[in-house]
Amino acid sequence: MRVNNKSYKSIWIDNDEKIFIIDQTLLPFTFKIIELKTLEDVINAIGNMQVRGAPLIGVTAAFGIYLAMHQGNSNIDLDNAKKQLIATRPTAINLKWAINQIEIELLNINPNERAATALTIAKRMSLEDEESNVKIGEFGYKLIENIYKKKNGTINILTHCNAGWLATVDWGTATAPIYKARDKNIPIHVWVDETRPRNQGSQLTAWELQHEGIDHTIIPDNTGGHLMQKGMVDIVIVGSDRTTFKGDVCNKIGTYLKALAAKDNNVPFYVALPSSTIDWKTGDSEKIVIEERSEDEIHYIRGKDLNENIVNIRITPDKSRGSNFAFDTTPSKYISGLITENGICLATENDIRDKNAK
Amino acid sequence: MRVNNKSYKSIWIDNDEKIFIIDQTLLPFTFKIIELKTLEDVINAIGNMQVRGAPLIGVTAAFGIYLAMHQGNSNIDLDNAKKQLIATRPTAINLKWAINQIEIELLNINPNERAATALTIAKRMSLEDEESNVKIGEFGYKLIENIYKKKNGTINILTHCNAGWLATVDWGTATAPIYKARDKNIPIHVWVDETRPRNQGSQLTAWELQHEGIDHTIIPDNTGGHLMQKGMVDIVIVGSDRTTFKGDVCNKIGTYLKALAAKDNNVPFYVALPSSTIDWKTGDSEKIVIEERSEDEIHYIRGKDLNENIVNIRITPDKSRGSNFAFDTTPSKYISGLITENGICLATENDIRDKNAK
Repeated sequence: MRVNNKSYKSIWIDNDEKIFIIDQTLLPFTFKIIELKTLEDVINAIGNMQVRGAPLIGVTAAFGIYLAMHQGNSNIDLDNAKKQLIATRPTAINLKWAINQIEIELLNINPNERAATALTIAKRMSLEDEESNVKIGEFGYKLIENIYKKKNGTINILTHCNAGWLATVDWGTATAPIYKARDKNIPIHVWVDETRPRNQGSQLTAWELQHEGIDHTIIPDNTGGHLMQKGMVDIVIVGSDRTTFKGDVCNKIGTYLKALAAKDNNVPFYVALPSSTIDWKTGDSEKIVIEERSEDEIHYIRGKDLNENIVNIRITPDKSRGSNFAFDTTPSKYISGLITENGICLATENDIRDKNAK
Repeated sequence: MRVNNKSYKSIWIDNDEKIFIIDQTLLPFTFKIIELKTLEDVINAIGNMQVRGAPLIGVTAAFGIYLAMHQGNSNIDLDNAKKQLIATRPTAINLKWAINQIEIELLNINPNERAATALTIAKRMSLEDEESNVKIGEFGYKLIENIYKKKNGTINILTHCNAGWLATVDWGTATAPIYKARDKNIPIHVWVDETRPRNQGSQLTAWELQHEGIDHTIIPDNTGGHLMQKGMVDIVIVGSDRTTFKGDVCNKIGTYLKALAAKDNNVPFYVALPSSTIDWKTGDSEKIVIEERSEDEIHYIRGKDLNENIVNIRITPDKSRGSNFAFDTTPSKYISGLITENGICLATENDIRDKNAK
C-alpha cells in the first residue's frame, strides 16, 4: 500500500539478500525502515512489536528461520530458532503454523541447503499472505456492497486495533474489504478504535487510512457502543490472532466488548482472517494462553511534544499498578461470520471445516 | 478523604468567605488548590473540568450563584448566571436541579439578601451531598458484604471513570461502598478503568485510592470484559450523570460496554447515585443530549516527562480527525440495581419511584 504516494509492503527482501521492515513502534510520527540481519534482530522485532499482527508475525518468523539457517544450519540450530521465535508471542497461532511448516520441509533436506530453501519458503509465505488478503478483500467487499445497495449512502465501518496492511504483508485483513470498496467507488468512512494501551488503531490504522486517502475518525475504545446504539455503524470488521475450529475469535483486547455491542444493536460483526490463523487443534477457547505484556505499556505513552520531539511520558500515578492482557476471546455466538481467503462462513465448526479445511 | 494523610473535601469555604477547589486537571501529578473568586471562575472551572463529576458540578454551580449574587443581585443577574452555568455541561442533570432549587428560593427574597441566602443554600447542598454519599456507602456496603460472606476472599470491584470523592464533595458515590468496606476490614481490590479520553480513572480514581491505601490496578478500558469472562470481577459499581425515571443510566462513555459484559458473565452491575441525579421528566433516554467535547482530548494527552515536567503531547497522526462523545446510556435491563441515599432499588420505574420520589 502507499506511504507518501509510494508503494510499500510491511516486509520485503532486496536482491534476495537484505530483509527490510518498517519500524512500526515509531509510527505515525517517524517512518523508518530497518534491516533485519540476524535471528536476534527478528526475535527483537517481533517481541518489541516493530512488526506485529498475526499474519505479518508469521511471515517475519519465516524470514527469521532463513537468517538462523545462515548463522548455523544443524537440527539443533533449527530447533533453537523455532523455540525462540515461538516464545516471542504466545497467542498468535500462525506464528507456530509458519514455523512448523518450514521445519517439516527443512528437516527433510541437507543442512547446507536449508538457508536457501528457508528463503524460498519465506518468500512463498509472503506471497501467499498477499494473495490471501486480496481474496479476503473480494469476499468482504460483497458484504459492504450489499449494505450499500440498501443504504445508498456512506458506509460506516468500525474496526479495532490494526488489522491493516501493516499487520500483514500487504492489503490487511479487516482493511482489505475497505480498500476494495474504495476502489469500487463506494463511499466509506471508518471509525478507528484507538486501541489502548498500544494505540495500534490511532497510531497505525489511522496512519494507513490517511496515506490511502480513506475518510476516518479516531474514537476512544469506549465510544463504539454508543455509536452502534445511535445507528452510526453499519458493519464491524476486525482481525483475529487465533480462531478456534469452533469459531471463537481471539483478537486484540477489547474486541469482545465491541462484539457484545454489535449483537445488542443488530450490527453485523465480521472477522477477517487468513485460514492459517484457524487453530484446528483447539476447540475450547478457554485453553488459549492470553499473553500478558508489560504494565509499562499502560503507564507510559509515546507521542510528539510541542517541539516535534518524540517522547515517552508517564500518564498514571507513580505507585499505581497496571494489568495488561493483550487479547480477549469473542464467543462464536456473537460473530456474524468469518471472512477468509476461501470465502465467508459462519463461526460454526461445520461451516469453518466445510470452507477452510484442506 | 485523605491526600498525603491530611483530610480534604473537593470544594470548601474558609471563614464563610473564600471558596477553594482542587484543580483536578493537574492530578495526579500536581496537587494544587485554587480559589474561585467570581462567577466566571466557576464557569471556567466546570467547563475546563477543574471540577467534574455530576454531584460536585451541582454544588460548585451553587457556589457560582452565590458569587454571581455578590457581583450583581437583580433578577436579570440571576437569570444570566443560571443560563451560563447550565450551558457549561449539558448532560449532568443535577447541575440544572441545583440551580433551579436556588433560583426558586432567591426569587422570593429581597435582592440584597440573595448573596447570603445563596451561600447558605450552597453550604446546605454541600453537606447534603456528603450525607447522601455516606448513606450510599452504607447501602452499597451490604452488597459487598454479601459477596464476601460467600467468597471469603478479596473482593474484586471494577469501576469506570471517577465516581470517587473527587466527583462529589466527599466519599464519592461508586467509591463510598468501597471505603466503607475497607473500614469494615473486608479485603478489597479495585480494577480501575483508565477511562479514555480524559483518563479520569487512571489519573483521578487511582490517585484517590492510592492516597486512601486501597489496593488497585489500572486497566485499559478494553480489559474489563476479559476479566469478567475469567471470573476476576465480583461486582461492578459505577456512577451516573443522569438516570431516567425508567432506570436508564447516562454515565461516562464506555459504561454501556461494561454493563453488556457484566450481563454476559452474570456479574452484578450496580450504579451509585444521589437521587438528585434522577431525571423525573425524562423516561426516554434517547432524548438526553449527549455532550460532545473537543477532539483535542483524543489527540493530546498529559503526563510527566523524564525530567518530571508536566507536558501535553500529540498521540495521533497530525491530520486524523477524532470524535469525542462524553457519555453513553446503559439501558435499565443491564443494571442489577441503583444505590441511592434512600436505599437500593431495581432500575425500574416502579421501584425508582417507590424508593426515591419525594
